[in-house]
Amino acid sequence: MIVGGALTGWLDALERLAGSRAKAGLTRQLRPRPADDFVVDLAGNDYLGLSAHPAVVGASAEALRAYGLGATGSRLVRGSTEAHAALESDLAAWLGAPAALVFSSGYLANLAAVRGLSAVADLVVSDAYNHASLIDGCKISGQRTVVAPHNDPAAVAAILDAHPGATAVVVTESVFSVDGDLAPLPALHEVTSARGALLLVDDAHAVGILGPRGAGAVAAAGLAGHPDVIVTATLSKSLGGAGGVVSAPRQFIDHLVDTGRTFIYDTALPPAVVAGVAAAIRVAAAADDRRDVLLTRGVHTVARLTAAGFEVAPPAAGVLSVLAPGPEAAVAWAADCRDRGVAVGCFRPPSTPDGTSRLRLTLNAGVSDEDFTRALDVIVECAP
Amino acid sequence: MIVGGALTGWLDALERLAGSRAKAGLTRQLRPRPADDFVVDLAGNDYLGLSAHPAVVGASAEALRAYGLGATGSRLVRGSTEAHAALESDLAAWLGAPAALVFSSGYLANLAAVRGLSAVADLVVSDAYNHASLIDGCKISGQRTVVAPHNDPAAVAAILDAHPGATAVVVTESVFSVDGDLAPLPALHEVTSARGALLLVDDAHAVGILGPRGAGAVAAAGLAGHPDVIVTATLSKSLGGAGGVVSAPRQFIDHLVDTGRTFIYDTALPPAVVAGVAAAIRVAAAADDRRDVLLTRGVHTVARLTAAGFEVAPPAAGVLSVLAPGPEAAVAWAADCRDRGVAVGCFRPPSTPDGTSRLRLTLNAGVSDEDFTRALDVIVECAP
Repeated sequence: MIVGGALTGWLDALERLAGSRAKAGLTRQLRPRPADDFVVDLAGNDYLGLSAHPAVVGASAEALRAYGLGATGSRLVRGSTEAHAALESDLAAWLGAPAALVFSSGYLANLAAVRGLSAVADLVVSDAYNHASLIDGCKISGQRTVVAPHNDPAAVAAILDAHPGATAVVVTESVFSVDGDLAPLPALHEVTSARGALLLVDDAHAVGILGPRGAGAVAAAGLAGHPDVIVTATLSKSLGGAGGVVSAPRQFIDHLVDTGRTFIYDTALPPAVVAGVAAAIRVAAAADDRRDVLLTRGVHTVARLTAAGFEVAPPAAGVLSVLAPGPEAAVAWAADCRDRGVAVGCFRPPSTPDGTSRLRLTLNAGVSDEDFTRALDVIVECAP
Repeated sequence: MIVGGALTGWLDALERLAGSRAKAGLTRQLRPRPADDFVVDLAGNDYLGLSAHPAVVGASAEALRAYGLGATGSRLVRGSTEAHAALESDLAAWLGAPAALVFSSGYLANLAAVRGLSAVADLVVSDAYNHASLIDGCKISGQRTVVAPHNDPAAVAAILDAHPGATAVVVTESVFSVDGDLAPLPALHEVTSARGALLLVDDAHAVGILGPRGAGAVAAAGLAGHPDVIVTATLSKSLGGAGGVVSAPRQFIDHLVDTGRTFIYDTALPPAVVAGVAAAIRVAAAADDRRDVLLTRGVHTVARLTAAGFEVAPPAAGVLSVLAPGPEAAVAWAADCRDRGVAVGCFRPPSTPDGTSRLRLTLNAGVSDEDFTRALDVIVECAP
């Protein structure tokens, strides 16, 4: 029992934990931004700049007027609108999958996908750098989980070979959310398909950016629509909205509709968000110009930061990672950038997979060339 | 390994599972509705009829124009807007708690709340009828969990007394989502406070409906703002929007900001949803007239259905439950009502806590008196 009794003793205990986090430089602070903060955004995930695109906002406003704000219920009660059905059909077509199912968040989509697969599999092989939602999916499914070294198909093969009786699912991100590096999807699929295992790919940071018509890293690897590949993604990054999706063979989507707890027992995504995302897909599919901007800026950023003495790997999509000397230095660096009008991400443990602290820069086609160049100057000038 | 290999063997396995569900009458079907389906809604959770309220839609449309659609990042990166901060302040004031934290879904709020408490507690006592998200919260926290008989403070006391060394959290809904009955919150709090345990209450189906100014069942029980009470709720039911909230002492909110995985690693709720919900709180706090409508309709519904030979308990808030002979009969009953223009909920296992199937009726102040009376006639006439 907590000393002092739970009435306030638990608050003292929480304060002690907060003190430990503060000593380690791990206190986080919410910084609410106004609607127009005149900041150059190299921190968000609005890669294609679609969150404020007139077609997206217009479609969303129209659905808001037509449906009202909330979906008013779970998907199986009153929450499925024609807008949801249309978006699911659009997503399946865009991603090249037989079927797609929309969730109110990418986190909930990942929980459902990993847990749903436990109906047919009994082993998860999970990349060491996987997102929290995938890790939680393993945890909540109660499945036997083996963590594989990051981006190492040979290690995955060895793990599968060491469990010859198991039906396994290999779980990975495509573009990893913190470092922005790309999983070797063709090699991973060779390993899984040769061994009768399934491959689950979280394509959140690649849809809209990689692949034909922005259909994602799975499509770029030629794996879209494969019967042994399950894809999850968010609707909140390059698509500028909110929510998540699982795209997969129809039988797995039906399985999630019937049994997916985070699908069944959750209020549906608001129709206005759904309609805005559907409009964003139409823009994104045709946005090779915006994807070219990202590509050019990635090259430019690496050149500029490398010249300034930093180690930065070429980004696979829209995420770059720059190492900082420590958590406090990372916080100070990001704060100095912010004071000079540039928003950059600052990732510290436990948000980084390897215990380091770093700046996380994102490319955003909605930022002007002039602002982008100035932002790089600011980042270099503010370096610790 | 799945017979036939994973490439398509897993799909065969899923089809076999689907066949078993179909035999048991447990196949679920999404029925997308148009923006205006001319249906009387006694199925959704839009209790106060606020999802289409002009003040809610107007505030949402304004934020949509100002911010764009998506929040563009997680709350700690770019996702916190001034709209989020204002809503959290409004929620804390309305619910009578020191602080509040908004999540993109009520499911994610419950996962965070239960898991967050594992930092200071080592035993969860969970009501047998708790919502899936609370159960998953217990599971994902990895904490020792004891399931208590439904709404039984004496049993909770006995469980706590049987674990004298533990720091416990008692977890319950206030108004249960399927049956609509009310937890004995004052008695539960007597049990927990006398034993140094914490009380976590999911107030999702009571905020907006019960308590002073609709502040919920926790407020109605005089427990709002108690230092040993943690409250979660959704923003998607009586508030007509989407998302979830944890309201609690500031130390616990800070703990969730620093460590809550479903808070940190999730894209923030869209600003347009946030602004609409804030407007809904202003309407809901002043909506005693709408709450009176619900109260009157609850009495009327019980009288009408009881007279027709059904067993229906008086609703604690806006949810009523009517037993059906079995899952197929429940589906047929709901389908017949729908064919006659009345939407009612049909809950079957595993959505019901006790293995029964039933109609779930919800009261909705946005429905006209005439439509409501007609809807009750239809429900009675369609009974199996």
